[in-house]
Amino acid sequence: SSIIDRLPSYSAALFEAKTAKRLTFEDIARALGRSEVAVAALFYGQARASPEDVARLTELLGLSPETNVAAQMMGFPDRGRAGPMPPVEPLIYRLYEIVQNYGYAFKAVINEKFGDGIMSAICFHSKVEKEVDETGSSWVVITLKGKWLPFTRF
Amino acid sequence: SSIIDRLPSYSAALFEAKTAKRLTFEDIARALGRSEVAVAALFYGQARASPEDVARLTELLGLSPETNVAAQMMGFPDRGRAGPMPPVEPLIYRLYEIVQNYGYAFKAVINEKFGDGIMSAICFHSKVEKEVDETGSSWVVITLKGKWLPFTRF
Amino acid sequence: SSIIDRLPSYSAALFEAKTAKRLTFEDIARALGRSEVAVAALFYGQARASPEDVARLTELLGLSPETNVAAQMMGFPDRGRAGPMPPVEPLIYRLYEIVQNYGYAFKAVINEKFGDGIMSAICFHSKVEKEVDETGSSWVVITLKGKWLPFTRF
Amino acid sequence: SSIIDRLPSYSAALFEAKTAKRLTFEDIARALGRSEVAVAALFYGQARASPEDVARLTELLGLSPETNVAAQMMGFPDRGRAGPMPPVEPLIYRLYEIVQNYGYAFKAVINEKFGDGIMSAICFHSKVEKEVDETGSSWVVITLKGKWLPFTRF
Amino acid sequence: SSIIDRLPSYSAALFEAKTAKRLTFEDIARALGRSEVAVAALFYGQARASPEDVARLTELLGLSPETNVAAQMMGFPDRGRAGPMPPVEPLIYRLYEIVQNYGYAFKAVINEKFGDGIMSAICFHSKVEKEVDETGSSWVVITLKGKWLPFTRF
Amino acid sequence: SSIIDRLPSYSAALFEAKTAKRLTFEDIARALGRSEVAVAALFYGQARASPEDVARLTELLGLSPETNVAAQMMGFPDRGRAGPMPPVEPLIYRLYEIVQNYGYAFKAVINEKFGDGIMSAICFHSKVEKEVDETGSSWVVITLKGKWLPFTRF
Amino acid sequence: SSIIDRLPSYSAALFEAKTAKRLTFEDIARALGRSEVAVAALFYGQARASPEDVARLTELLGLSPETNVAAQMMGFPDRGRAGPMPPVEPLIYRLYEIVQNYGYAFKAVINEKFGDGIMSAICFHSKVEKEVDETGSSWVVITLKGKWLPFTRF
Amino acid sequence: SSIIDRLPSYSAALFEAKTAKRLTFEDIARALGRSEVAVAALFYGQARASPEDVARLTELLGLSPETNVAAQMMGFPDRGRAGPMPPVEPLIYRLYEIVQNYGYAFKAVINEKFGDGIMSAICFHSKVEKEVDETGSSWVVITLKGKWLPFTRF
Amino acid sequence: SSIIDRLPSYSAALFEAKTAKRLTFEDIARALGRSEVAVAALFYGQARASPEDVARLTELLGLSPETNVAAQMMGFPDRGRAGPMPPVEPLIYRLYEIVQNYGYAFKAVINEKFGDGIMSAICFHSKVEKEVDETGSSWVVITLKGKWLPFTRF
Amino acid sequence: SSIIDRLPSYSAALFEAKTAKRLTFEDIARALGRSEVAVAALFYGQARASPEDVARLTELLGLSPETNVAAQMMGFPDRGRAGPMPPVEPLIYRLYEIVQNYGYAFKAVINEKFGDGIMSAICFHSKVEKEVDETGSSWVVITLKGKWLPFTRF
Repeated sequence: SSIIDRLPSYSAALFEAKTAKRLTFEDIARALGRSEVAVAALFYGQARASPEDVARLTELLGLSPETNVAAQMMGFPDRGRAGPMPPVEPLIYRLYEIVQNYGYAFKAVINEKFGDGIMSAICFHSKVEKEVDETGSSWVVITLKGKWLPFTRF
Repeated sequence: SSIIDRLPSYSAALFEAKTAKRLTFEDIARALGRSEVAVAALFYGQARASPEDVARLTELLGLSPETNVAAQMMGFPDRGRAGPMPPVEPLIYRLYEIVQNYGYAFKAVINEKFGDGIMSAICFHSKVEKEVDETGSSWVVITLKGKWLPFTRF
Repeated sequence: SSIIDRLPSYSAALFEAKTAKRLTFEDIARALGRSEVAVAALFYGQARASPEDVARLTELLGLSPETNVAAQMMGFPDRGRAGPMPPVEPLIYRLYEIVQNYGYAFKAVINEKFGDGIMSAICFHSKVEKEVDETGSSWVVITLKGKWLPFTRF
Repeated sequence: SSIIDRLPSYSAALFEAKTAKRLTFEDIARALGRSEVAVAALFYGQARASPEDVARLTELLGLSPETNVAAQMMGFPDRGRAGPMPPVEPLIYRLYEIVQNYGYAFKAVINEKFGDGIMSAICFHSKVEKEVDETGSSWVVITLKGKWLPFTRF
Repeated sequence: SSIIDRLPSYSAALFEAKTAKRLTFEDIARALGRSEVAVAALFYGQARASPEDVARLTELLGLSPETNVAAQMMGFPDRGRAGPMPPVEPLIYRLYEIVQNYGYAFKAVINEKFGDGIMSAICFHSKVEKEVDETGSSWVVITLKGKWLPFTRF
Repeated sequence: SSIIDRLPSYSAALFEAKTAKRLTFEDIARALGRSEVAVAALFYGQARASPEDVARLTELLGLSPETNVAAQMMGFPDRGRAGPMPPVEPLIYRLYEIVQNYGYAFKAVINEKFGDGIMSAICFHSKVEKEVDETGSSWVVITLKGKWLPFTRF
Repeated sequence: SSIIDRLPSYSAALFEAKTAKRLTFEDIARALGRSEVAVAALFYGQARASPEDVARLTELLGLSPETNVAAQMMGFPDRGRAGPMPPVEPLIYRLYEIVQNYGYAFKAVINEKFGDGIMSAICFHSKVEKEVDETGSSWVVITLKGKWLPFTRF
Repeated sequence: SSIIDRLPSYSAALFEAKTAKRLTFEDIARALGRSEVAVAALFYGQARASPEDVARLTELLGLSPETNVAAQMMGFPDRGRAGPMPPVEPLIYRLYEIVQNYGYAFKAVINEKFGDGIMSAICFHSKVEKEVDETGSSWVVITLKGKWLPFTRF
Repeated sequence: SSIIDRLPSYSAALFEAKTAKRLTFEDIARALGRSEVAVAALFYGQARASPEDVARLTELLGLSPETNVAAQMMGFPDRGRAGPMPPVEPLIYRLYEIVQNYGYAFKAVINEKFGDGIMSAICFHSKVEKEVDETGSSWVVITLKGKWLPFTRF
Repeated sequence: SSIIDRLPSYSAALFEAKTAKRLTFEDIARALGRSEVAVAALFYGQARASPEDVARLTELLGLSPETNVAAQMMGFPDRGRAGPMPPVEPLIYRLYEIVQNYGYAFKAVINEKFGDGIMSAICFHSKVEKEVDETGSSWVVITLKGKWLPFTRF
């Protein structure tokens, strides 16, 4: 099935307005004071918009204020449904493969540095940057930053 | 099944020697001039050792030179078998969840910044760092850096 | 496969000693100052023992101090492998069924009471109690208590 | 697919009326003399409404009496379809993870305390509470209370 | 994998003794005052033996009293692992197919006759009988009898 | 997805008429000279109606004779699609669990009583009865009766 | 895993003796008065041997009479475990593909010719033949012959 | 989901016309000079129609020549989607079970008779016949005939 | 579900225009200066069109310039959703089977020839050719050509 | 599990001898007059050795003639078990991804060029070549060549 069927109904309205206004996620992120990743997640229904986000988005994208897009975006997202797992999209699969191949290496290093616990995926932020090396090749740099949560002794 | 059954036979020897010598991945990484993540991946059979790596590891860990651990570590790894997918280990699951929740957001931002292609998971490196914020809370920072590979037009 | 194949090697030693000494989880929990659920999780390799836990357990269960059970129990657990999911054991399946049937109800109530976030399963504790009602029927009462983690705005 | 496709047709009507009337599950639970969890389960089609529940809900939510929402809510629910298993929603996954990690620990403790049997998920009730600790942190407390059912000897 | 790998270790001892003594499940059931189905379940590690069961079985099967078969049989069974689901064994698949084909029919009839609830599989017994019809054909008659458990209103 | 999507198109018409006429499966079964389980299976598209069944149902339910419900009900059912397997509905799951837990016990007892073969699920009938024991508790009694089919020697 | 792990323990003995004696399934089938397919099924633990089969096999293959191969072969087979489904072996996959592609065509033709029922896979026999056409090409001809079982009206 | 959703759009038109004209697959097969199985496969979108097939079918079924049913039937089928695997339909499951139970027996006999290779499922034909034995019982006989393809040495 | 449901909305328009204009993929590939495989991938939404591709396709296929097919084809494809995996289509399954059977052989040969790394499926092209051998038999020749990517040492 | 557990027992002997003799697949392929891919497949138990292959391999690798490696290699391979599907090894996954992304494109082009049928994976050969482009970059070129098999009309 197409990804559209998996997204909340307001996603289509957002993507259409973004295309019509020729705005990038970078533009929108700047206007909202949020990360591009968070803004894209908002478009895919994977993050929640604050009232301020909604106000700025409505203005920036020219959304009709009486539509219920705004109300929906402030609802509690039903996360995790955007795509199948394991991912079939090559770009997303590469991230999955990193978890598959290096998962235990990350665990071993994190346990050694922090103890017994996890990196939160909730109290979490992320960004995507572009680097160009001396040979002119581009590199994608994804930073995952999550709060350290030790297992509670009970 | 225990993870030991999923690892190459030299893994047990490496972990035992590391424990006996009270070495951290950080110590070993410094001695090998590699990242801690890569060293841990080596221990889990997910990366390949160069002859220099083997020479230094043999000395550092006090591995008997006539064992075939060295030869095995220079073989071509059979990657991806360390653990089940979806991961059942909470620490590793959080990384999987990030892919599940933010996969399309990463794709949208990367497509916008770079075009049609992927971030390589092969021409790739990664590191784990610890940050402590002003409130004293610790944060895990994982950096994923992969070469940009555009889809070839054909 | 039998559950024994899925547990760390020290599990068998602990269960045997517990049976031989005719100790209950309640006895051990009292001696360790921990919850019975945590103690049972320790036996199944799903929780980590502190040095004090190990010292008390060694004494209480009469474990030979030179075995490496103690060292293993202080290692970082490789959690989540004790049994298959969906569970095939009827007692455990009932808990799974509660998540299946009431998962969205819990989410809706928690979102309403707390906002956008999750109940942590890491910064978490749990206990099992027995209640007998006025008709003499017994009830199992499981309390799940986890820290509230709001999604970080980024 | 969106969760709406998985719910009975009356769910949308209930959620819309609740939003329009600015009622919380707590308000509705008080009016019906039921737990918030049960009320939310009713909204998701996972519990059955009594004639009294229907009468009160119709009045409280301002449902048109001639719609067949009432009749449907008194039908026998086709439970268990609200979401996928394993859950992809982070909040619900945490509950699943608790079953995965602590399932055998719960079984061991319950067997020790009660004998050979299960905690019923049918003759069962549950509630969600909020606690704030001395540091001002919030905790989610979920209580699962099910009747003890011993295996019949036959 | 062979079924033997999925059974508790005492199963092999029981089956061998039964074959050596040329006893049927009917014989053993009569001696124990239990149903043949329950006795077979005991052999497959799916039911628990009482001390009396163990005493009679030890005598009947000529088990050496100092083996720990007896102790194991009184432990709490780890049920549900005897075979794969969906079943690959034709006889067992037919039972699975009955659930697949008639599951909703059973639900509809039971809801009509009893209300909103389930037939317990715990407070449950079962028997297998043989009938021969007037044409000389044999019929297998399986009776499943479980206590009615209504969903608790909460 | 809702169960309605999995059923043949005539199912909705039958259920609606049954509700409108306030008929029970017992009423309909009596009128058709069939078992309640078979009648419910007919409603769910899991059994085939004879011309006499159709004639009586049309009259009893007041179906318009020119609809093609009748023709469809005499077609060959495409069985097995009513619900997912493993079942997510608690009532149906209990039946599945009985197969999971007692499957090999049934096989062992049936092999002992009948030889090498199966109980047919085709040349088969079933009924559901209610029993009330001396304490006033209700019990569900499901009888599964299938012809014995020995494996042909070839 | 290798197929050997999935077969009963007597399979290896039979295959070894067959190779040592340079016997074909055709030779053995002739000696036993059975089909080659049935004999191969016997070797893979998917069919039951009669006492006469065992007597002839023991002599033909030179099995030591005091081994318990004979006894095991007369036990009730635990069928269906020889290989994974979907099959990964190309020869067996082709048979699976025929079911996948032509399953509904077979059903439609069989329903038309026979009514509402199934072809038994129990009261069943099968053979494999070789045909060479006029161009010298070989064809495999598999005949599946099963008793017609109409659904019982109940 | 209903099988209709899985079939090409022309399937419904064909089945309706067949019913309206009271034609059997046997009638149609005779008119087209093809096997009944092939004709049924054509109806389910699992085989391709030649221009002559289309001409005859159009006339026989009274299809409107200007519909695009004809064009569609001459397209290249997207095979294998008619039903789920493992099959849930009892009739089709029996064929699947034959592959599961006898797959390795077929392989062993075919390897012995033909060498290292497979029976083609492409260069393949099949038929269904009815036999009545001396006791009056009906038997379904399915013949699978595929060209022998030896593995190429390379 | 039909493949149409899995493709982007512009796919239907492209296929219809191609059929109406009686163009082959070869014709279109020549006009676009691309491989037939790439053109077919474009039709199935698995590759991205450049502005020049869109201009030529619009002219060649007579697409209405004001439709948004052009804009959509220049979007970033959501790859990998065209069909199920494992494939059920026999032609595509054969390619899957080659990976299943020869995957490790390809890996061993590639590692020997190139070292530790992968063949890129992104920096990649492919073509399909027809060869006819001396006996008149046709052969399909698929060439997969991907850039060699060595694992980065880190 | 390690790949060794999935391979026939002679695989380990072959790989060890190859390493000890410092032979490449290219060396062995030249000696046997076979493709490197076929030789590697032989080592992984996915292809069959002819008597001549065995004679040359025995000599080349210095295998002890009285071992039964030779006999085993002439047996009929039980293909398809070398690794899991979907593949977890990155190199093999890339091949799987090509099938996932381009499967329908290959089908469309092949149908257009050849008609209704498949490329055989049995009457099939393959090779791996290395190309270096003008920039010094290496490319992996895999050729898949299979006989065209049209669907038989029946």
